[in-house]
Amino acid sequence: MSLNIALDAMGGDAAPKIVIEGANLAIEKGLDCYFHMYGDSALINPLLSAFPLLQTKVTVHHTDQAVPNDMKPSVAIRTLKQASMRLAVQAVASGLCSAVVSAGNTGAYMAFSKILLRTLAGIDRPAIAAKIPTINGFCVALDLGANVECSFDNHVQFAVMGEALACRLLGKKNPTVGLLNVGTEEQKGDAVIQEAAQILKESERLNFIGFVEGDDITLGKADVVVTDGFTGNIALKSMEGVVRLLMTSIKDALASSMLGKLSYLIGSSAFKAVHKKMDPRIYNGAVFLGLQSAAVKSHGGADALAFCQAIDVAANISREIDSVGMGQEIEIKLKQIYGASL
Amino acid sequence: MSLNIALDAMGGDAAPKIVIEGANLAIEKGLDCYFHMYGDSALINPLLSAFPLLQTKVTVHHTDQAVPNDMKPSVAIRTLKQASMRLAVQAVASGLCSAVVSAGNTGAYMAFSKILLRTLAGIDRPAIAAKIPTINGFCVALDLGANVECSFDNHVQFAVMGEALACRLLGKKNPTVGLLNVGTEEQKGDAVIQEAAQILKESERLNFIGFVEGDDITLGKADVVVTDGFTGNIALKSMEGVVRLLMTSIKDALASSMLGKLSYLIGSSAFKAVHKKMDPRIYNGAVFLGLQSAAVKSHGGADALAFCQAIDVAANISREIDSVGMGQEIEIKLKQIYGASL
Repeated sequence: MSLNIALDAMGGDAAPKIVIEGANLAIEKGLDCYFHMYGDSALINPLLSAFPLLQTKVTVHHTDQAVPNDMKPSVAIRTLKQASMRLAVQAVASGLCSAVVSAGNTGAYMAFSKILLRTLAGIDRPAIAAKIPTINGFCVALDLGANVECSFDNHVQFAVMGEALACRLLGKKNPTVGLLNVGTEEQKGDAVIQEAAQILKESERLNFIGFVEGDDITLGKADVVVTDGFTGNIALKSMEGVVRLLMTSIKDALASSMLGKLSYLIGSSAFKAVHKKMDPRIYNGAVFLGLQSAAVKSHGGADALAFCQAIDVAANISREIDSVGMGQEIEIKLKQIYGASL
Repeated sequence: MSLNIALDAMGGDAAPKIVIEGANLAIEKGLDCYFHMYGDSALINPLLSAFPLLQTKVTVHHTDQAVPNDMKPSVAIRTLKQASMRLAVQAVASGLCSAVVSAGNTGAYMAFSKILLRTLAGIDRPAIAAKIPTINGFCVALDLGANVECSFDNHVQFAVMGEALACRLLGKKNPTVGLLNVGTEEQKGDAVIQEAAQILKESERLNFIGFVEGDDITLGKADVVVTDGFTGNIALKSMEGVVRLLMTSIKDALASSMLGKLSYLIGSSAFKAVHKKMDPRIYNGAVFLGLQSAAVKSHGGADALAFCQAIDVAANISREIDSVGMGQEIEIKLKQIYGASL
């Protein structure tokens, strides 16, 4: 059966253009799905006309409201009852769709998702999780920005959710889990992270390897890297910044001489391979973990290729949640860790 | 007058070898200084014999004690009264030396420095600050790991100290100051960072540009990036990890084919230039800011070149503190911000 996916057509820097182009790419790549697009039909329909195949696989639901990027989540919740983002999330809540994708205001998107989609039993707060490239493949990192302040229980829940996601996104059987800290020694970090480590260590329900440091993320020391949303967001963006700095530096250095230009020409396939590995577009699509349904956040600056990737993640996660019982697995493991107290 | 610099000969992964080689490099490069080295003379003296010139510019102070890397700072303070690190810091406190450098246990080093060297008036906690490469040069970032938990006053003090350092290390007249956050909008972040932003904005004593995000660090959006020691440490190490990942990926990609190898050969001077710009060794030497004297932390994994760089930073900072009044400038600005309440 083809999958119904809800799209917030008005979210992201270049919406609705990249949303439509991204959806079209997904169809062209053979994804068996049907889209429900929420947004301004006066903007959407003219753009859709360029994609005849996509037109047969989409219903446009008109709304005038969109969530501005700088709007506080609480204000969006209170005032924007007909926002494209809200309606897209609602489409999943009502059962019309199995997954939702938005490139809009992250805080508002998380707020709508928490309110309209149910959280899993034992999960206090959903987290944002995504794949990050490492020397030996990929790891899953969370929370990447949903929760600025986190308790030790939040960290434990993130660890369990991250493990379930890593099994699926990375195809790992018994993924290693590490807590991000300023050192690997047991006494490092604050009380919150030390308590979380204690619980994870004692429960023995995860392949917990203790604390990992910032550079261990890309070293691939842990398959799942757990941290609070403040640190995770800043670490991720700092890493993205360094990729840009390095790529620019190499390009500039090579472009500054004839020999450099020749070198680039000769080595172009190698440079392209590296660029592809590091390209944030190919691992776009952060998962809101901890919900009963699949909600995926695309980068706000995503292009069509990146948005298509986010749709792909949404389709995969939705299948895992619906048929493979990712949610039940998380709930069971949390019960094992916390015992009957849950 | 030549500068007296205290060196913890036993700190760092390859101590005392790299400490001695680094000191020798500094002398060879013409730095006008005299070293007081603290550590195990049975290990130090045989190594020194290879460097006749250095031998005329060093006094070795023997001690059996060294601070293990995994020792809690509080334990080091309580039990290691004769540790090489402590004696080196004490040499500055007693007035024998003007600056101290160690590549050892960061927490213990900061603890000894706080106890033995006086903090500036108005500074509750010293911070670790260092230069980070950006697209258009360098920025100064702090705190990179001294204080895992920080109040809003700590953030304000870091901002003032960072500005004073940026004026000197970067040669900027009116450096821009940004607070690291998960977004640039005013409502982003927790109460601590919002209160700090409010104080910095209202005081108008710094060139405060508001919040900056992780990728803004290497974009060079602010000359001074202020954050707590937990986030700063993890962001810095995450960035170092990405540099290694990218450099390895490019090297592997180029080495995997004849064309790639040829490309590397032809473009080698460009690759070397980039490598040099990103090489953590050339900006090794993090400053413990907020003390009355110059204490500089070298990376634990530093080689001789990197350790020499840390010595150079210590010499510069010591001159700024002694003759140019960096400490007074910080104290005056803090008084302006906090008014008579200080």
